[in-house]
This record gives sequence, structure tokens and C-alpha cells, in this order.
Amino acid sequence: MSRNIIEKKEILLETGPAEPAVRLFVEKSLGEGAKSRLEPVAGVARAAGFPFLAPPFAAITVAMSEIPNRSLLPILRPESVAVIGASDTPSRIGGRPIHSMKTMGYGGRIYPVNPRRETVQGLTAYPTIRDVPEAVDCALIAVPAAIAVDAIRDCAGRGVKSAVVFTSGFAEQGEDGARAQAEIARIARDSGMRIVGPNCLGVFAMDRGWYGTFTNAPDMLDLPPGPVGIVSQSGAYGSHVLLVAQKRGVGSNFWVTTGNECDVDLGEVIDFYAESPEVGIIAVYAEGVCNAGRLRQALGKARDARKPVIVMKVGKTDAGARAAASHTASLAGSDAIYDALFRQTGAYRAGTTEELVDVAYACQYGSYPTGRRISLQTISGGGGVQMADDAVRYGLDVAPLPQPVQDRLKALIPFAGTNNPVDFTAQALNEPDLMLKNIGLTIEEADYDSHIVFMTSVPATPFMKKPCADLFRTVRERWPDVQMIMSLVGGRDVVEAYEKLGYPVFEDPSLAVRAMAALTRFGDVFGRTGDSAPPAAPPGMLPAPAEAVGEHEAKAILASAGIPAVRESLAATPDEAVAAAAAIGGPCALKIVSPDIPHKTEIGGVLLNVEGDDAVAEGARTLLRRAAEQTPEARIDGVLVSEMVAGGVETVLGAVHDPAFGPAVMFGLGGVFVEVLEDVSFRLAPFGADEARRMIGEIRGRALLDGVRGAPPADLDALADALARLSVFAAANAGRIESIDINPFVALPKGGVAADALIVPRTAQ
Amino acid sequence: MSRNIIEKKEILLETGPAEPAVRLFVEKSLGEGAKSRLEPVAGVARAAGFPFLAPPFAAITVAMSEIPNRSLLPILRPESVAVIGASDTPSRIGGRPIHSMKTMGYGGRIYPVNPRRETVQGLTAYPTIRDVPEAVDCALIAVPAAIAVDAIRDCAGRGVKSAVVFTSGFAEQGEDGARAQAEIARIARDSGMRIVGPNCLGVFAMDRGWYGTFTNAPDMLDLPPGPVGIVSQSGAYGSHVLLVAQKRGVGSNFWVTTGNECDVDLGEVIDFYAESPEVGIIAVYAEGVCNAGRLRQALGKARDARKPVIVMKVGKTDAGARAAASHTASLAGSDAIYDALFRQTGAYRAGTTEELVDVAYACQYGSYPTGRRISLQTISGGGGVQMADDAVRYGLDVAPLPQPVQDRLKALIPFAGTNNPVDFTAQALNEPDLMLKNIGLTIEEADYDSHIVFMTSVPATPFMKKPCADLFRTVRERWPDVQMIMSLVGGRDVVEAYEKLGYPVFEDPSLAVRAMAALTRFGDVFGRTGDSAPPAAPPGMLPAPAEAVGEHEAKAILASAGIPAVRESLAATPDEAVAAAAAIGGPCALKIVSPDIPHKTEIGGVLLNVEGDDAVAEGARTLLRRAAEQTPEARIDGVLVSEMVAGGVETVLGAVHDPAFGPAVMFGLGGVFVEVLEDVSFRLAPFGADEARRMIGEIRGRALLDGVRGAPPADLDALADALARLSVFAAANAGRIESIDINPFVALPKGGVAADALIVPRTAQ
Repeated sequence: MSRNIIEKKEILLETGPAEPAVRLFVEKSLGEGAKSRLEPVAGVARAAGFPFLAPPFAAITVAMSEIPNRSLLPILRPESVAVIGASDTPSRIGGRPIHSMKTMGYGGRIYPVNPRRETVQGLTAYPTIRDVPEAVDCALIAVPAAIAVDAIRDCAGRGVKSAVVFTSGFAEQGEDGARAQAEIARIARDSGMRIVGPNCLGVFAMDRGWYGTFTNAPDMLDLPPGPVGIVSQSGAYGSHVLLVAQKRGVGSNFWVTTGNECDVDLGEVIDFYAESPEVGIIAVYAEGVCNAGRLRQALGKARDARKPVIVMKVGKTDAGARAAASHTASLAGSDAIYDALFRQTGAYRAGTTEELVDVAYACQYGSYPTGRRISLQTISGGGGVQMADDAVRYGLDVAPLPQPVQDRLKALIPFAGTNNPVDFTAQALNEPDLMLKNIGLTIEEADYDSHIVFMTSVPATPFMKKPCADLFRTVRERWPDVQMIMSLVGGRDVVEAYEKLGYPVFEDPSLAVRAMAALTRFGDVFGRTGDSAPPAAPPGMLPAPAEAVGEHEAKAILASAGIPAVRESLAATPDEAVAAAAAIGGPCALKIVSPDIPHKTEIGGVLLNVEGDDAVAEGARTLLRRAAEQTPEARIDGVLVSEMVAGGVETVLGAVHDPAFGPAVMFGLGGVFVEVLEDVSFRLAPFGADEARRMIGEIRGRALLDGVRGAPPADLDALADALARLSVFAAANAGRIESIDINPFVALPKGGVAADALIVPRTAQ
Repeated sequence: MSRNIIEKKEILLETGPAEPAVRLFVEKSLGEGAKSRLEPVAGVARAAGFPFLAPPFAAITVAMSEIPNRSLLPILRPESVAVIGASDTPSRIGGRPIHSMKTMGYGGRIYPVNPRRETVQGLTAYPTIRDVPEAVDCALIAVPAAIAVDAIRDCAGRGVKSAVVFTSGFAEQGEDGARAQAEIARIARDSGMRIVGPNCLGVFAMDRGWYGTFTNAPDMLDLPPGPVGIVSQSGAYGSHVLLVAQKRGVGSNFWVTTGNECDVDLGEVIDFYAESPEVGIIAVYAEGVCNAGRLRQALGKARDARKPVIVMKVGKTDAGARAAASHTASLAGSDAIYDALFRQTGAYRAGTTEELVDVAYACQYGSYPTGRRISLQTISGGGGVQMADDAVRYGLDVAPLPQPVQDRLKALIPFAGTNNPVDFTAQALNEPDLMLKNIGLTIEEADYDSHIVFMTSVPATPFMKKPCADLFRTVRERWPDVQMIMSLVGGRDVVEAYEKLGYPVFEDPSLAVRAMAALTRFGDVFGRTGDSAPPAAPPGMLPAPAEAVGEHEAKAILASAGIPAVRESLAATPDEAVAAAAAIGGPCALKIVSPDIPHKTEIGGVLLNVEGDDAVAEGARTLLRRAAEQTPEARIDGVLVSEMVAGGVETVLGAVHDPAFGPAVMFGLGGVFVEVLEDVSFRLAPFGADEARRMIGEIRGRALLDGVRGAPPADLDALADALARLSVFAAANAGRIESIDINPFVALPKGGVAADALIVPRTAQ
């Protein structure tokens, strides 16, 4: 398992009674490039008062102790705003927000602060925040880094409720900046003034004309406020997503860039969106997360509110991670753990901006298929083939139409493809009514959860424009709740006409399928109301050991948590081993047991398929001798005599402590699957059996569990139960465990057993 | 291996002296849905005079014997055109081509043929083709199916050089249609008149105003003729690709839809494009290929002409394949073999229309990186992270800038990310000259093969529009040959300004990276001039056997082809086995040898690690007894005594006869890799060692060959040599072999050996 998990370590430092505990997370990269990734972040560690850490300690982040989730209303719904560093020039950072608010009709009170001017852009200016006649809801900080901290402190002193700090030059720019940023964070904590940034592009709420941002984007917004709430750690990328979304017809009301996140972070904004009635869909751009607990909770809250969350999380690869480290002061956590989080909370992870925006676009129509059965209808056979390929790839079910329906379709258009995809053929162009009949039969006489209709350019051609629009208006009127995406190519007017009829429109049929698959996934996630809870910890569940223990004890501890192990007993002498083997019956495995020998095979400490009294006695002697010779200092508990498990599939169940997300559980198949293919899936602990089943279903080699070459299928219920119980054990022992390997856990046709186990306590490292 | 390869069979039928040989290809599907896929094609087989084939023979195609590659000039460069079934109404199928040609300025002669009219759209009409005053270059057939065959025969009789048959109702619509289509094919063969279609949407050549098509698309074309030649088997999808391409700024001169391909097919059109000076890039939409040899040759010709070919081949999955069968009368060949063909010939396989069009768009700039080192430059750190993730995913090398260059960049913008991606930061907005210096240093002082610059909306903002345009004009002037893609979001005017400067423009940075990766792949493919040739067949290479042979003989035959095998000898008696084992020395494997027992393990016919005279003698006796008892009718050659190979990695080398493409060679790793993960790669035989190395590099489990858990790496040269030699053997024995399994071929740290082999002759099925 160690090949797949980057080693991580968390050091808890009490920094003094006046300050909260500060946790320092250290990631020990096993890959290359550790040194190059170290440099940008070493300054952060030094600035935070920690000694410089030499490679291979490569990525570092400092997370403050949790701040209670106070409201973000003063930031997103301010009734009064002060602009510190206000400028009379609309193009300047301190001028643009005032200009935008004035032109976009902000209804609240604006107080420019500038000691050198009487007025700014026609508004009365104030020399300092102390001179502003009220304690404003929000202060925009647009002064250079050298004076920003003082300005923020002054705001806090004046009772300002929140601040959005545009100023850059903090943790992203080395040691001094990190120190200054820590000071800003301290001001936020001490005063209760909420702070967005520093090094951010600001926030906006379009419906109130509130533009606490210096981006040019407001000039380019041509859609009315819409249901997509955007939050981005990167300012420039946040603007990019916003503008691409606008071009795609995806409207946003709220937009927040969180920058260096000294106080308000991604999770808290998502939490706000989950509660906000103005937000129906949440689009997230993330680079790295400090407060993992808040993020997890917020994603769960959004799911419970049936609000789809679409996340673009970058920094997947080594080169990507390097760039993330140099861009923000946040740690890019292990990508597999992020994946686990998103899968578990039902967030959709988009790979590209286009995918993020496309899925948000489709979600705007506000309903989600409740099953995977998709009907594909097409004016072009080729388009049908393409969509069918894609649907299968995205896990949708291109179920054939029932034969009687096919027969009726055949009667309508003799040479139409009627199976699924249904191919209208060019005949439909001559008789558009045929399409209506076709579509109607498919909707009424079959049991599909969703439909895609590929019309290519037909709805845009002069002769077909009106008949097509009439047809699809009728479809929408007769079957208002049907899930249907249109794929067509045409001008903006044609696209908008179909959008107004309630059809999401995609030019590329493949991307239409991808979007429908995403909607279907949300439908599945929102429908998981009966998901099994994590199993209760068995009475008498033992705690994780504080010190290294041998395999035998590890299995006993896990057995107390409900994870079955092979029959075995520990023998102190060869004679005891003989007796133990006789009690088990049949061939046995003999293994040396010592808390000081975690890797038994390396000293030849394992013998398999030993049978017969003489062989068992001789085997036990051999193991004891090898241990004494090769590891003379090791404490030897004895020889473990275990039954040999026949048949079954070797799997690996593991747990690991992620420095950001806490205990996570891993599943994989034994042998090359874990070691070469890194074919594993993760979930954050704890979880129930349903989640465990999904986890098992994600691995590429899952066919092995269904039985290959005539082998019987593995007992997936037992396997899922063991995973869920391991997650409960890991969660109950968070902070005590560095990692657990159950390798192998043999998944049998009925049940399953742990054949070997290793528990590494956190203090053991 | 059989799990991965659909069983296929080719039956060669001599249909009489007057007709060419017709090959009937039968695909035996092992998947579900065989019956549903059978129906649409059974009629084709019957129509072609073959008996109905019951399931599981599921997909059938009839390929005529090869037609010499005559020129397509009369189809794409006609100087005179007759329209059979000409209509006065511009919206009708027989009216639209005339209308299009008249309005688009066709310079040739147009002869409407319509017995009921004097004139058509102002042109003199003729009652029949015989009355037309010249033997035209091309006749468009726009009459109903019932009279189409006669019309085509009349054209041939009149000496018409080519025909484009719009009419549908042929092989795609059952048995009678297939019979009629066979008649059209016969006319083409007998007369030499080239025929496109039937059931096609036609062809066009924009530069001459030649619109031999009834699609509406000509009305929607707003770009001048461009270098992308489009060919599509599907008419409607061909139009879709054309229109999406137009919207993306991708211009086409030639456009051909091939429909049912009774004569002119995809391969021949690609061949024409490869030779045509008007075509620089070839975009292909394919559903299934009949004449595989011509396609392979054409793709090779395009590559040699340095013309990128971008292919969308649908019908990958079961559901997709079902739709393909019901849409055209062509056979969707095994997808793995198509992949092999495209990889081998350097064609780029696009997964979506968007990808097809995006890559063609980027190719329009006409140059290709010669290496994988990519420089990423960005105004947004987030965009940089995203691009770095994508670049790694697409196999590009995000190599760091040399440290001295980084130092110089740091001196320019102190807090810029300087590693790679280079992050200009917002500072660049204040001083655009810094960007120029940054870009210049990256180009001049480092050794990158390509560059992507992510500018998001900056080039579209009022204040930055001009400085940005000036900057990138200067970049283009100073470094005219640099490979650089821009990623930005802005209006059409902004995009066009950068395109005119010679930059491909992408809104989504991820798609920019995908396109650059595609250009890089073409650069690699075009640079493969020194690729190793297939090795020469060794003198004395034995022919493939005509009958089933035992493992021993199979290895001996393959050894004669240069594929090394384990040391072994065949023993007729237990005593001979003892002598053989003694000669080999050390532990041996004993195996029963019989041409009638292909699967030895099923009768317990293999014993491993047998050592010592008594054990060998006893083992040989056991095997002979088991064979006699369990397969009394089998011919027993004896017991094979083989050395046990220690260490190494078990691989599978295979060969298979693909009914469309002929002999293909497979590579995979042993065990679960082939059986569960289907982790294999294919190439068409023959090929050289360089291609074999690429093939080895494609499998997911390739890390196993590099050595895991301290194992030494496998000898990839030896492995590649064995694959290349197997391909030479398979090619030399095309038509004689159904399949070959070398399983395992043990790849050793030095060399490699076949430990078991099976050759299935074609007549054996």
C-alpha cells in the first residue's frame, strides 16, 4: 500500500496560551521534484515560526484551528461599503469597484477612504476609516501591502464587519508576506471581522449591483443574475470561469474569489451557497484546501439541499502540484483523497473549464433523471452511433426499446433504426409529424429516464426551422417533465429558442451525453436518502494500539471491530505450534510474530502450506532461528500458526491518516492491481456498506470479484461490510493511526477473512 | 487471448468466372445482443447469394475484390454535370444541387435531365441522359430507388465518367435493396464509371462552385475554401462536422460523403486527398470499413505527404456497434484493430466532433512541434496549474526552465512563478513589456518545442486590448517559427485578430493543451523517417502448419522465425524423459504433447518444477496415463521436458487474423492483465522493432517491465524483436493462421523465451 500513499505527518504545536493551536502539516513526497516543490513553501513555514524542513519534506501548509461558521452576509449582502485606497480613476484597483457599483446600481452606501482627496468619483471621501460615519458592513482593501495590515487593523478597530483584501504580496510571496498574512488572520480571529483574501480579486452579488471586485468582468456580463454560485481560490481563473459561463448562457448572481484564505475559505462560501435561496448550483474552482472538515461538511450540506456542486480541482500531477504550490500558500492534498471526498459527497469533478460550465449549464434546467436508462433519438445514424458509444462510456444504459414499440415505430417509418438509438432517417424531414409520433411512443410506451435528440443543423435550416420548433414545443407541452437534451448546430437565435422551450442545447452530441450523465449522477446522489449508515462499533471494540504490535494482535484488534480473521493461534515453541496446527487441521501457514519485524517476508519469516507434525515443528524452529540470527534485537512473540485459506480473491483493505482530511480507507485487489496499476479507491471514514459497495465498484479490476475462469463470485456484502467496519474503526481511532494494511483480506464466495494485517500507530513514526 | 478477440472467419467463395471473387466476412460475436445485430445484415447476406447464417454469426459484410485505384477527378473536378431527376424547385433533392451551383458560380456545364420539362431552373432540360449532348464527367442521381438502377445503367451506357447516387433504399434497407446495390456495383465494375453512394448526401468542391449535394449546408458556409478535406460515411454527420468546423473557423474545399460505398470508399477519398494539393489536413468520419487494405495504404500515403489525418471512428461499444449495423451495411471491425491501424499510420483518433474540429483547426497553422517539451505561460496561476495537469495527462513534458533563466525572470518580476508554468502575475498588466521579456527569455534561453500562453480575458479588456495585440505581434515578428497557442476568452473580433497573427486560439486552456499534444503527435509521426523496417524473415523460416500441431512443434516453428523458446526436448517414454531432464539440468516442466489437446491444463497435463530421476519418470508416467484415460482418441506425441525459466515477467504475444485487416499482432502482460483488465495493444503485421516498442509502451501495466519490488527491468529490445518477428511470421503466413498464442513469453532481464505456444491454423476451425 505504501506505493500508493504519500507519507504524511501532522505535528501539533501548542504555540502559547494567547494563540490557538496551530497545526503544521508536512507532506513527505515519494516522487521526484521534491526539492523544486520545497522552495516556494519553505518561507511559509519559517514565517510561521517553524524550523526549516529539509527535503524530502516538500509541501507545507499552516491551518488555523477551526473558526466557528459565522455568517458571510456582510460580505455578500453589504448595505454599506468603505473603499480603503479609493481612486478617482475608474481603471485603477481602488477606482474600479466604485465605478462598477455606481454604474451597476448598487443601492447601499459607498464611503471612499483617501486622505488626499475631498471627493472620489463624485462621492465624499474620508481621510481614514475612523472618519467614516458608520461601522460599514464591508471594507474593500485596495492599498499596497506595506500599509494594508494597518488599514485592516483600523477597520477592525472601527467595528467594520468584514473586509475584502485585494492587496497581494502576502503568503504567496515568501516569508515576510506570510508573516504579515498571519497577522491579518490574527486580526480576523481577535476582532470577529470576517476577511476575504488577501491576494483576491474580490466578490460580487449582481442582483444588488454589489461589485466588491476590481476585475473587468462586470463590463462583460451580459446575462441577468442566474442560479450558479461561483467560488474560486484563483482570482483570474474565477473571472475566466465567469466569462466562459456567460458565453455559454450560464448566469451567476454570487461570485467569490478567496485568494490566500487567511479567514474565509472555499468551504465556508460553499456552505453559504448551500443555504442561500439565490443559489441553485455551485461551481467551484479549487487548488488546495486547508480546512478539510469544513469543506466536507459544506459539500454534504449542498447535497442535502439538492444543489449540485461541480468542482474543478487542479494540481493533480507532479507538474501541476508544483505550480499550485508556487501560486497559493495552500497545500494540494493527495488527489486520491480529494476524489474520495467528491465521490462521497456527490460533488461532480470536472476535468476542464468547458466541462464545469457545460454541466452547470445543464443543471440550470433544474431536474435530474432518476435512473440510467437513456433513449437516444437522431436524425443522423452517425450521430446515434456516436451517442451510443459515449453513453456506454459514461455508464448510461442504452436499453433497447421494447419489441412491440419497435414494431409500431417500424410501421411509421419502415426503414428507421428502432432499437435505440432510434434513427428518424431523412424521411422525418418530409413528415415532421413522424418525429412527434416517434418521440411520443418512446416517451409513453417505454421506461426511459432521459432522452437526447440529435437534430444536427435541421432546426436551423430555412425549410425546417418552423416545423421543428412547433414539434418540440408540442413535446414540451405534452410531456413537461421529460428529461430531454437537444443536440443541434445553429445560430444563437435557434439555440435560444430551444432553451426557452426548456431544452438544454449542445452542439456536440458527445458533450450532450456527458452532460446527461452528469445530471443522472446528481439524480442518483440526491436519491441516496436510504444510504446505509456506518455500522455501529461492536461493544468491546479494542482501541488502536499506541505501539507497534505483531500481526496476530493486529488481527485480534480488527476482529474486535468486526473484521473477521483467519483461524490461528500463537505458539511460543515448536511443540505448541504442532498442537496448534493439529487443532486447525489441514495445511497451515507459519509466520514469525514480532512487533519489531513489520516485513516478515524480508527475513524469510513466512512458511506456507506446512502440513504434518514433523514439518510444522521443523518449520517453527526454522523461523525462530532466522529471527534470532537476522534480527537479534527484535522482541519475538512466537510463531503464528494460521489456517491456509483456499480459493477466494486476495484484496487489500487499508486505512491511512490524511493530514488534511483525517482517516481515509482504501480498497484494492491484491498483487499487481495495487502494486503496479495503483488500481485503488478511497473514501473518508466513516461510511456505510452502500458507500463501500460503490467504492468496490470503482476499481478497474472489479471483474475479478465477479469470478473469472469459472471461479465463483466473491461475497461483496461481506467485503463491503469489512470496509465499512474498518472505516468505523479508523474514524474511532483518528489521531492514533498512521496506517492500516489488511493485506490480504481474502474475499471468499461466502464471507471473507483477514489473512495478514499491519497497524502502524502514529507515534510509531 | 480468446477473451479479447472476437472470433472471426472469412469464407472465400468463387462466384463464377464472369464475376470477381467475393469474400464473405462473418463475425462471431461473443457478446450479448448477437441476435438483434443479426437482423439488419442478414438480408445483405441473402441478397448477395449466401445462405442465411444463424446466430451467433452476427455481423456480415460483403467486400468486392479490389478495384484498381482510378482517379476521382471526374467526381471532384467535373467540367460537366447531368442531374438525373432534375427539379425546378430549389428545395427538392433534384433541385438543390442546380440551385447551389447556379448561385455559387459553378463554371462547368449543367444538364438537367427530366422527361417532363423543357427547362429546369432556367436551363435546357433533356428527356434522358442519352439526349445530353456530351458524355458528362459526373451524373447526380436524384430519382427514386425503383428507377435508380436503370438510370445509373443508362449513364454508364452514355459514357458518363462518374455518378453520385443520392437515392436511398439500398443495402441499408434490407434484402431487395442490397440486391439492387450489388447491381449498381456491378455496373461500376463493368463500365469503369466511378460511383459515390448510393444513400449519400453527395460531394462538393467549394473553389469551383461544384455542389453535387442536396444538403442545405452550402447556404450556411461563410468561410472561404480551406485546407481541410472532409470525408464521411454518414451524410448527416458529414454535414454536422462541416458546419461545426465552419463555426470554429476551419475551412474546407472538398467534402465527400460516401454513403453505402458500393464503389468509391473512404480509403480512396483519403488517397485522393493525400495527393491533392488543395488538401493539407484530412478529417474523416467512419463507421466501418470494407476495404481495409486501401484504407491502410491511404493513411500511410497521407502520413508520408505530411498531411495530418484526424479520424472519428464510431461504433466502439456494443450499443454503438448495434446502431452502426442498422445504419449502414458495413461491418464495424474490432475496435482494437482500428486503434492499431490509426496508431500505426499516425492518424489521430478523435473521441468527439469537438476534438476532431479542434485538432483540424490547430493543424491549419501548418507546423508541428518536433518534441514533447512544452512551456506554459500564464496570467493566472490557476490556469497554469490546470494546463500543467493536462500536459502531463497528454504525455507532454512540462520541463522546468533552466535555473539561470528562472533567475533572470525573477529579476524581472520578483514574485512570478518561474519554474514552468511561468506565471506573469497581475504585475504584467501594469507593464506589458515584462511579458515580452518573459516570453522572449523562455523562447531564446530554453529549449522548448512548444508554448501555450493563457491570457484569459485580458486581450479583450478595453485597457489591455491594444498593448496585448502589440505584444503578440512583436512575438510573432521576432520568432516567426515558434509553436505557440493562445488561450483567451473574448469576442470573435479578438479571436480573429490573434488568428491573423498566426496563433491558434482556444477559450479553454485544457483544450489548448489537447490540441498542442495532437500537433506534437503529428510532429513525432512525421519525423519517423528512420523507423526500423520489419526484420527480414530468417532463411529457413518454416511455414505455418496446415493442421493443428503440438506445443513443441509450434515453438520450433516460431523459433525458425527467430522467436527464442525454452530449452526442451520431446520424450516418447519415461526413460527418455529422465535422460532429457538430465541433459537440461535442474528442475523441469513436464507437459503432455498432442495436436488434439490444445488446453493441456484441463486434463492435468502439466507438471512444474519436477526434479530428480525418479520424480521425472513418475511424472512422465502420470501424464501419459492421464492423457490415455481422459482423451483416449487423442494422438499422443509424448512428454515435453522443458527447462523451468527463473525470474522474468510473463507476457503474452499473440497474432490473430482480422477478417477486414488481415494478420494483427497483440501484446499484453500475463495473468490478470490480459484476462481481467484486457490490457493489450495491437498492430497490423508486419512491423519493425520501433513500432513494437511503442506497442509495448501503450499497456497500462508497463511498469511491471521496468522492474517492480527490486526486480531487474525486462529486456525490452529482445521483447520488441520477438514481437516484430512474430509480425513478420504472421504476415508471411496471412491466410494460413487463425491465431497464435505465445503464452507466456517470458521477458527476461537479458533476452526472453517462449515457454508455451499455440498455433491455430485457419483450416482448423
